[in-house]
Amino acid sequence: MIGPFSFTVEKMDGGARLGRIVCHHGVIRTPAFMPVGTAGTVKGLYPDQLRGCGSDIILGNVYHLMLRPGAERIAELGGLHKFINWDGPILTDSGGFQIMSLAKLRKVSEEGAVFQSHIDGQTHDLTPERAMEIQRLLGSDIQMQLDECLLYPHSNEEASRAMRLSLHWAERSRAAFGNQPARGCFGIVQGGIDAKLRRESAETLVGIGFEGYAIGGLAVGEGQAVMLNTVETTVPHLPDHKPRYLMGVGTPEDILESVARGIDMFDCVMPTRSGRHGQGITRFGKVNLRNAKYASDQSPLDPESTCPASSQYSRAYLHHLVKSGELLGMMLLSWANVAYYQELMADIREAIANGQFEDFRAKTKDQWKRGLVQA
Amino acid sequence: MIGPFSFTVEKMDGGARLGRIVCHHGVIRTPAFMPVGTAGTVKGLYPDQLRGCGSDIILGNVYHLMLRPGAERIAELGGLHKFINWDGPILTDSGGFQIMSLAKLRKVSEEGAVFQSHIDGQTHDLTPERAMEIQRLLGSDIQMQLDECLLYPHSNEEASRAMRLSLHWAERSRAAFGNQPARGCFGIVQGGIDAKLRRESAETLVGIGFEGYAIGGLAVGEGQAVMLNTVETTVPHLPDHKPRYLMGVGTPEDILESVARGIDMFDCVMPTRSGRHGQGITRFGKVNLRNAKYASDQSPLDPESTCPASSQYSRAYLHHLVKSGELLGMMLLSWANVAYYQELMADIREAIANGQFEDFRAKTKDQWKRGLVQA
Repeated sequence: MIGPFSFTVEKMDGGARLGRIVCHHGVIRTPAFMPVGTAGTVKGLYPDQLRGCGSDIILGNVYHLMLRPGAERIAELGGLHKFINWDGPILTDSGGFQIMSLAKLRKVSEEGAVFQSHIDGQTHDLTPERAMEIQRLLGSDIQMQLDECLLYPHSNEEASRAMRLSLHWAERSRAAFGNQPARGCFGIVQGGIDAKLRRESAETLVGIGFEGYAIGGLAVGEGQAVMLNTVETTVPHLPDHKPRYLMGVGTPEDILESVARGIDMFDCVMPTRSGRHGQGITRFGKVNLRNAKYASDQSPLDPESTCPASSQYSRAYLHHLVKSGELLGMMLLSWANVAYYQELMADIREAIANGQFEDFRAKTKDQWKRGLVQA
Repeated sequence: MIGPFSFTVEKMDGGARLGRIVCHHGVIRTPAFMPVGTAGTVKGLYPDQLRGCGSDIILGNVYHLMLRPGAERIAELGGLHKFINWDGPILTDSGGFQIMSLAKLRKVSEEGAVFQSHIDGQTHDLTPERAMEIQRLLGSDIQMQLDECLLYPHSNEEASRAMRLSLHWAERSRAAFGNQPARGCFGIVQGGIDAKLRRESAETLVGIGFEGYAIGGLAVGEGQAVMLNTVETTVPHLPDHKPRYLMGVGTPEDILESVARGIDMFDCVMPTRSGRHGQGITRFGKVNLRNAKYASDQSPLDPESTCPASSQYSRAYLHHLVKSGELLGMMLLSWANVAYYQELMADIREAIANGQFEDFRAKTKDQWKRGLVQA
């Protein structure tokens, strides 16, 4: 039987941490990458492929699921896990980011957000209480507070206002979450790229008390250096014994550098979105399979990968599928990319366990620069 | 080791025949359904899913593959089997049908066809000799003669002219095929819906001599009754000891009725095309998963299917995926539909083996009318 929601740091190596989250649907090995299952499916992958390549947890989006098929419908059908055929942990994002990035005519007030659906233009309300109710209906293992996300760039005044509003919503979200055994509620640190605002946000959230802390509002165009700097200045204000989640991040290098700075959890659409657009993400860097140089390349994407999509199909075939707009091209590259992300996370965890994270980090960054060669 | 190309009728039950084709890449149990892998992929399915649901052979299209990536390129890469990761038998259609249905500005002469690619408008020639050369480069187990297909409706004069031209091409195709151990060349009976023309075509082809005989030019709009009538009047003019292939057919009922009339092989895009458009094809008939009545239906498509796509995902989830335009919806329904076609073929073969084909035919047709009920 699974006990209460817990997080254990098993090993430190510099700033990098090896850990385990235990929650209702199982164990999450950290540092963890969560493939994004926006509308109840990680685009183009079967659940057993996700599991098979080492995904412990996937992410779902409250924004998409509340619009279609609806939280009450999913609850009637037995919850999100049963609905989508995934029996491992699920984290749900509370909708703040998508209201900023996808919804039309949004209006944010102290009470909550009012927005028009990008699907049919219908008006919806999302308060902190409703965001938590939806996540409870879905049965998520990790439920995120509602926050206000800003487009980048924005003024410091805007960042400050949105950060304080998000803190009010954090308090209301925490209260609405209540007591859900073996499930966790995470607060989200906001404050743009201002270290003082980030500190105020982090300290206030820690005062409220959450099972974990996310850093939100990054990877929105500020660039890697600014992002990592913000992570560096924020992490010291978060407790050591709680998981730290950097939302919406990122490239393999973003992940590696953020692990070095003490981040435990990541999510990003990049592996699947890139895969649908003909891009492979590999040990040897990014590969644009549309490129004519792959038309006669008999090598697989990565002969040493344990993922069949990487090791059992030639680049020439992938090139052909991508050029022909075939579903199988999207399927194979999405699978290969998620598998590479999970191989990277497994290697990161192993390096930390062996106290060799710094070596691994240098070697891996060199390897990314190498580019593909014929196997 | 595989011996020469062979076909054995193991059992007859009325007009229905149970048989085995042995060819270079293995054994094909007949009656057989060949999923269509137009451009080197059965759309939306992994090769192991095709094999796993009982597909012995798949089909590739000369028309698509000659345009992209090109027959010489595939030959350089080790042939079609290696290119697409499928080690079972492959039949290739010679291009006649697609020149009629897809190409632009086609011009057919005694020599062959000249047409513009539907992809980039470039002009291509396809003679019977080139069609056979392409299929040899691909390494197909069963290679089809080039024929001229007509749009329906057409005059009897047109049908007669095109049939005679196809006979000339049959002779040239047979000569160009030469001697390829364990591979077969099939002639294609044409002649529209005219019994006399069909007979002339069949008898002339048998005079030339092929490893198998296809009936082409049907399922183009003439309706099931006319199609089955044409099959009935044509089959008696084909040899008993050679496989009979009804091209481009069809619905489950078309297949069942054609098996009753002595057909051994079928191909059709219906299971995958329907799957991509939200339609399930099941033991209990066709199911439009877009229909709102499935939004809360917790039953799987068919709980008794051995295909996970049919038995492990609820109709409510399939409905959601289809409505949301998700890749996984297309993937699951394409897989479920191909699996149903292969279950049907397996059941047909078993019924013939047991001398119960007539019972099976009646029972199956009743079941299709039943429609889905909640499991």
